[in-house]
Amino acid sequence: MNAIKDTLLMGPGPSNVRDSVANALTLPTIGHLDPRFIVIMDEVKAMLRSVFRTTNDLTIPISGTGSAGMEACFVNLIEPGDSVLVLENGVFGVRMADVAERLGAQVDVEEFEWGTPVVVDRAAKAIASKPYKIVAVVHAETSTGVRNSVEELAPLVVESGALYLVDAVTSLGGLPVDVDGWQADAVYSGTQKCLSCPPGLAPVTFSDRAREVLAARSRKVPNWYLDLSLLTSYWEGAKRSYHHTAPINMIYGLHQALSDLLDEGLQVSHDRHQEAHEYLVDQLKNLGLELFVDPAYRLPMLNAVTVPGGVDEAEIRQRLLSDHAIEIGAGLGPLAGKIWRIGLMGHTARRENVDRLVTALGALL
Amino acid sequence: MNAIKDTLLMGPGPSNVRDSVANALTLPTIGHLDPRFIVIMDEVKAMLRSVFRTTNDLTIPISGTGSAGMEACFVNLIEPGDSVLVLENGVFGVRMADVAERLGAQVDVEEFEWGTPVVVDRAAKAIASKPYKIVAVVHAETSTGVRNSVEELAPLVVESGALYLVDAVTSLGGLPVDVDGWQADAVYSGTQKCLSCPPGLAPVTFSDRAREVLAARSRKVPNWYLDLSLLTSYWEGAKRSYHHTAPINMIYGLHQALSDLLDEGLQVSHDRHQEAHEYLVDQLKNLGLELFVDPAYRLPMLNAVTVPGGVDEAEIRQRLLSDHAIEIGAGLGPLAGKIWRIGLMGHTARRENVDRLVTALGALL
Repeated sequence: MNAIKDTLLMGPGPSNVRDSVANALTLPTIGHLDPRFIVIMDEVKAMLRSVFRTTNDLTIPISGTGSAGMEACFVNLIEPGDSVLVLENGVFGVRMADVAERLGAQVDVEEFEWGTPVVVDRAAKAIASKPYKIVAVVHAETSTGVRNSVEELAPLVVESGALYLVDAVTSLGGLPVDVDGWQADAVYSGTQKCLSCPPGLAPVTFSDRAREVLAARSRKVPNWYLDLSLLTSYWEGAKRSYHHTAPINMIYGLHQALSDLLDEGLQVSHDRHQEAHEYLVDQLKNLGLELFVDPAYRLPMLNAVTVPGGVDEAEIRQRLLSDHAIEIGAGLGPLAGKIWRIGLMGHTARRENVDRLVTALGALL
Repeated sequence: MNAIKDTLLMGPGPSNVRDSVANALTLPTIGHLDPRFIVIMDEVKAMLRSVFRTTNDLTIPISGTGSAGMEACFVNLIEPGDSVLVLENGVFGVRMADVAERLGAQVDVEEFEWGTPVVVDRAAKAIASKPYKIVAVVHAETSTGVRNSVEELAPLVVESGALYLVDAVTSLGGLPVDVDGWQADAVYSGTQKCLSCPPGLAPVTFSDRAREVLAARSRKVPNWYLDLSLLTSYWEGAKRSYHHTAPINMIYGLHQALSDLLDEGLQVSHDRHQEAHEYLVDQLKNLGLELFVDPAYRLPMLNAVTVPGGVDEAEIRQRLLSDHAIEIGAGLGPLAGKIWRIGLMGHTARRENVDRLVTALGALL
């Protein structure tokens, strides 16, 4: 592994990790039921509540990457035959539908053009069209760089009586996430985006209403590993009991990353992401590069940039990585070959990193 | 997290981590599709094949802890209504049955007394009693300290036509695991036992026969995150495509842990575990302590020790941890209060650690 050198991670995640977080990963491993570890778990839960802006008791990191968070939210709430509506405008909406279908749900997908947001009027009609158990949407579509108006959709979902399931993988820490304000019922994220922790954990939060649905299931969750009713026996209460062995050192890293974020302040972090984004857009303009997404719903932390005609997009990415130690991302699905995805996530979202990328891009184009 | 100090981990896992592995965790995070990371993935697969003693192509670490490996093996092979036989003599056999039942399998459990092994004659009758799709057994029952004769059961399962599913969480690296010799079809392990890597990954290996069963499924795997037919698009082939974001830094740690183990040599590691175990048994005898399990099927890496009458077992464990920075484990289920579980796993399995524990135990008893 000697070939591993510092790389500026400006793709769709993972993002760069602060030294404080890297150092936390190497703290001595202790037992998963060690009283000192229980304290760390409780602090992680408390900090996650602050970052998610929620008072939900059930707010924990799942022992898997972001997609395990998605899986956890759906598998705990769905029983076969349940109706689910996915408001889809990118890869992660498609994935939600796939996850839910595999669990035996009746899934309706309301599709919106990739690169544009979920249109609230049309979503409202879909939400009202029948009684859904779950309405699901992605806050920050990492595949396209689009921000969906989770806050405008919220009252529509709440009024419909459905559970509101939100993907906050890429938004958490970089954009306001307001779980209680949205009255969201199940929200998941990942550590390797705007939290600037290596990939490996998926913070999730469940509302009391979602917990009641979980408690009232007619059959067991068909996934022992992700069954929240079992996980709570380890993560909650005065007496903790073994479920699975928690990924101790990764949780040290998350603890440090959350501390760093809250020390900086959520609003300061959001502003930093926005400023780095605006600076990037300006600098790219000087290179003649345009963003793929309309300013009204652009994400700050994931910038979809239109590949200019005649440019071999893959070669540019490869040379950025090999010659300049900078990673940016490719387009996915119908956007493959058409866009680059430039991440400004967490610790990476700083002006000096934008400068370094733009200089390198300028030399290559 | 300032309270985290070096602790001698002599419980049921996690075990102590070598400095080399701790240092590997802090290597710079790079992208999950970075060509340098693909090389590391390929090296991890190759080293896992050596450690599992298999030529199985599909040999990868699952992005979750050991129980996610169990979940992955069952969820990829089971379709609703499939018949599964679990040969059960401890917590992890019980867990296997629970996992399989949640997936809609018809599960038969052949129970054996906790603290004793699966009896081959009785297992043979159960295996032959009807055509099972899967027969599952735990190699090293961490809950009791018993070694099951996976090798003697192997021809019976093979002859029956069932898939042979083996839990090697606690055995891998500390006892001979011979996946190809056993003709085992699905085997999983964890990183935090005899591999001496922090918890967070679950190495699994699937035989070609198991892959054929997976490929011939009539419905999709009801777990997107653990679907091996999707994971292989990321872990195999000339062109890798994104599935989920791999836990990059944990995989650095596993890479280093496997390198260290293979540098030492599998046989040398097995011998070291056995020697540390025999030394522990001798030293405990001097304190008047006896092992709960018969020598014929004792595990070297997990020593179930009978708590002497009149001793408050929980207090001893707590004082070992608080006063001597040594963790040992409690009994589970029917063995709670009756045994201590003393681990000698991976880097921990050394004579000086036994001395430290025995001195501390002697002072407390």
